[in-house]
Amino acid sequence: MNSILVDSGTSPQIVPADHPLVTSTDRGFTYGDGLFETIRVLNGQALFLNRHLRRLASGLTLLNLSIPWNAVTLTERIQQLIAANQMTEGILRLTITRGSGPRGFGIPAQAQPQLIIQAAPLPPAPPPATAILVPWRTDPASPLSQLKSLSALDKVLAKDFASQAGVTEALFINLNGNLSEATSSNIFIVQHDQILTPAVSEGVLPGITREVLIEYALAWGQRIIETAITPAQLTTASEAFLTNSVSGPRPLIGFEGQAIGTGQPGPITNILAQEYQQLCETVSQPTK
Amino acid sequence: MNSILVDSGTSPQIVPADHPLVTSTDRGFTYGDGLFETIRVLNGQALFLNRHLRRLASGLTLLNLSIPWNAVTLTERIQQLIAANQMTEGILRLTITRGSGPRGFGIPAQAQPQLIIQAAPLPPAPPPATAILVPWRTDPASPLSQLKSLSALDKVLAKDFASQAGVTEALFINLNGNLSEATSSNIFIVQHDQILTPAVSEGVLPGITREVLIEYALAWGQRIIETAITPAQLTTASEAFLTNSVSGPRPLIGFEGQAIGTGQPGPITNILAQEYQQLCETVSQPTK
Repeated sequence: MNSILVDSGTSPQIVPADHPLVTSTDRGFTYGDGLFETIRVLNGQALFLNRHLRRLASGLTLLNLSIPWNAVTLTERIQQLIAANQMTEGILRLTITRGSGPRGFGIPAQAQPQLIIQAAPLPPAPPPATAILVPWRTDPASPLSQLKSLSALDKVLAKDFASQAGVTEALFINLNGNLSEATSSNIFIVQHDQILTPAVSEGVLPGITREVLIEYALAWGQRIIETAITPAQLTTASEAFLTNSVSGPRPLIGFEGQAIGTGQPGPITNILAQEYQQLCETVSQPTK
Repeated sequence: MNSILVDSGTSPQIVPADHPLVTSTDRGFTYGDGLFETIRVLNGQALFLNRHLRRLASGLTLLNLSIPWNAVTLTERIQQLIAANQMTEGILRLTITRGSGPRGFGIPAQAQPQLIIQAAPLPPAPPPATAILVPWRTDPASPLSQLKSLSALDKVLAKDFASQAGVTEALFINLNGNLSEATSSNIFIVQHDQILTPAVSEGVLPGITREVLIEYALAWGQRIIETAITPAQLTTASEAFLTNSVSGPRPLIGFEGQAIGTGQPGPITNILAQEYQQLCETVSQPTK
């Protein structure tokens, strides 16, 4: 995991991970003007890569940012970095910035986007999570709510707010008072044997694991409904869980100092976590 | 303007402006986890520098980010860069990032903040501005509303929204429906011979030019009131203007396709712009 890939549009280079790469006029650095994807690697394969690249493409369109790499090229770059690091398991971060530009927020007519792909080891499976509410509200009408962007200081501050309160996660609420997501994961609750998750229209980053669960749940004997969810519903849920690409479904067992359900990982969460892990193993088989 | 100053806590270095400086694990780059200040240089002096450094210090406290440079050291670094670029006039950008950290939003216990100071020429005085409303709302309770942060993609998108509508600026409104600020400036309106500006509690970055105007206005025979302002009040204002450290008071002559007042720069705006420019000349005299 000691090397990273960088590409300014001409040709990719593999360089040491601690190499200074970004100029101080790159808008990714100056204004957080760029996007990233966090991708799990299993059995040497980048999991659900096409879905990640599709979401990335949607985000770039919202940013009015056109890049010189198509999905095929990005896939090659990722495979090149996996090979360079001899990764079988781990996490990739793919970052695209708008590139250098003059001072000012206006989007420059000419800019050369930068691509950086980094590798990190897979962290140990996290313990069940506990959460509190973020003390400010977000607007689902903001394009930022749909973007996995480099402008993530709100998430840094929310995560720190949770840490200082002694819990693992902070949940954002929107200006309608409904739950949207956690700092780096989507949220699901189980209520009357139904699985609910906030609809994208509530101001939710459309997570890849979220998308996969919604699509595969029926095959696993479950049904996931996208809807509006209030914090009060979380309090009375029989179980809850968080999802992201790094750790899959993760039990959420406490909220605002109270246990959710029994205060233990719930049976439906456990089923989904097992099925999801099995799916990851299946789709990462090289013979596929 | 071809060199920049960089300091990782040990000793400052002057390097070429296009030098790659930032590693891809720097949280300023990965998460927009850092702050900046935009400072005007006149007669070789960094204008209102103590005010800028005071605001920076407040922001760093909100971020729980402690830096190894005090105001004296930062002032020395700035003077060093002004000398290296032989600047008499121009714009400085001082950036502080939290430094490198492992993957994840949580604030690392150990991090080495980075200081980067850049120089740019003073842009020509901009023409009078026109504006529209940003189509999403912000929460004044978010700490981000008080921070001049590297997570500025909302401002990039708002500015682009304005450009696409053929106007120069976009005005943010908060979830109470009141005006807060423009993408890189504070807003003031004139109504019944009173000058009004949104209070900081409306979710306003406390601009340095804003602060200076509020303090000096009485000496110039004017009075500025910090309050809540609705978009409807802007429509019926007799004049309006924007302020930032780069261009001082700038007339705002149109809003949502309609003229503000006569559609020309107003007399009170002109007085304040002249007085402010005179103040800048006075405080930048080396003999002072």
